[in-house]
Amino acid sequence: MDNFLKKGERIEDLGLKELKIIQNPDFFCFGMDAVLLSWFVARRTRGALHMIDLGTGTGIIPLLLYGKTTAASITGLEIQAPLVEMARRSMALNGLSAQIKIIEGDIKDPGSEILPNYYDVVVSNPPYMRAKAGLKNNCETKTVSRHEVLCNIEDILIFSKRMLKDRGRLFLVHRPERLGDIISLMRTYRIEVKHLQFVYPSIKKEANLVLIEARKSGNPGLKTDAPLIVYNEEGQYTREIYDIYGMTPPE
Amino acid sequence: MDNFLKKGERIEDLGLKELKIIQNPDFFCFGMDAVLLSWFVARRTRGALHMIDLGTGTGIIPLLLYGKTTAASITGLEIQAPLVEMARRSMALNGLSAQIKIIEGDIKDPGSEILPNYYDVVVSNPPYMRAKAGLKNNCETKTVSRHEVLCNIEDILIFSKRMLKDRGRLFLVHRPERLGDIISLMRTYRIEVKHLQFVYPSIKKEANLVLIEARKSGNPGLKTDAPLIVYNEEGQYTREIYDIYGMTPPE
Repeated sequence: MDNFLKKGERIEDLGLKELKIIQNPDFFCFGMDAVLLSWFVARRTRGALHMIDLGTGTGIIPLLLYGKTTAASITGLEIQAPLVEMARRSMALNGLSAQIKIIEGDIKDPGSEILPNYYDVVVSNPPYMRAKAGLKNNCETKTVSRHEVLCNIEDILIFSKRMLKDRGRLFLVHRPERLGDIISLMRTYRIEVKHLQFVYPSIKKEANLVLIEARKSGNPGLKTDAPLIVYNEEGQYTREIYDIYGMTPPE
Repeated sequence: MDNFLKKGERIEDLGLKELKIIQNPDFFCFGMDAVLLSWFVARRTRGALHMIDLGTGTGIIPLLLYGKTTAASITGLEIQAPLVEMARRSMALNGLSAQIKIIEGDIKDPGSEILPNYYDVVVSNPPYMRAKAGLKNNCETKTVSRHEVLCNIEDILIFSKRMLKDRGRLFLVHRPERLGDIISLMRTYRIEVKHLQFVYPSIKKEANLVLIEARKSGNPGLKTDAPLIVYNEEGQYTREIYDIYGMTPPE
């Protein structure tokens, strides 16, 4: 498999239907948020849906959605050429180049390959931080992945409003501190939040992630699912996290 | 103490500094939401603040705030005359008629006793249900306490915008399903949600209440506190709920 790899890259086994992904520690590597988001989408959808992942990076979410859902089509959109190239190699490595399309493009100006009112599901694990907030990572690829330099919440909503079918759904993972921005902006675009699930590092700690499901032209009214707790009081992953990762907890 | 009571009424001991409250099962009796909200306010504030409770009902929240905070003044505003009368008797029963003022009035048209830009804290455990949603209770007092007949979220925000000091805070308890309405309306009034705490009946269940802290002229950015779980897996109150009620858990 080494002919799939460039210098500094490694192959990670996803522990799901023998799927593998190429990662490069010099870029932004996928984290638990991508895994939780894919699990959340899989749990909340069924059937032969058309799905697109915005800012797909190395393609982790399309691969996990392929493994966990019965989607009719899965597309990943990514603006950064080195990541597009890497994601495409990961798809080839899995023999999934036909099943998962990786498109190079800007969500603010998507090309003609992306059709309006076509998608049932838009997914995104977007940059969490405002463009001007916090320290920026020197490496440009990591900066773009973490900060709203090339893509912010409003860009995702504009894209979703245009590309989702009526009543289609947008799934996001984000930091709870941005929830005020997200919910109020969504309403502006008539995309209504329908489900929230907060992720707490432990039962005694503040939430550090929130999983969001919203519906184009949805009515007000949302449910907040049972809390997702990452570590138990002994500092080990909870049963639920082991389940989500498809791993067996130690006896 | 029976001379304080009318037919059908009873006195409940609040288990806090010997405070007592008159309740009437024919009206809306206070629930865990009022207790959790008072605890949340007490935990999130300090000092000699001016506090007002909107739709105070039988006066439970002013009494609990009196017991749990060092507020400079506590006012309860209530539109329903029979509840105002009952709340005033509860204050007299506790010898607190001077310390806690119960005002009869409409939050949409508060009288001159309520001063603009005066309050540090506005608190409310408002009706949860939209005026047209769900079955209405036949008893008018209960209907008004449960449904947005005389007071809705926007009325509370308009009141808060006017009566809070700049940077003053609004504390609410509400159903999570209304969170989209609440957060987006708040932003319209430049009252920004700053803290959320979700209350889950058990660790495996959807949240059924949310405690909300918002700030007049606040900046975007919120924290989601550790989950508040009501029952443990054995179906008993959790340690935290016992603490909030000031009770000792059984050995």
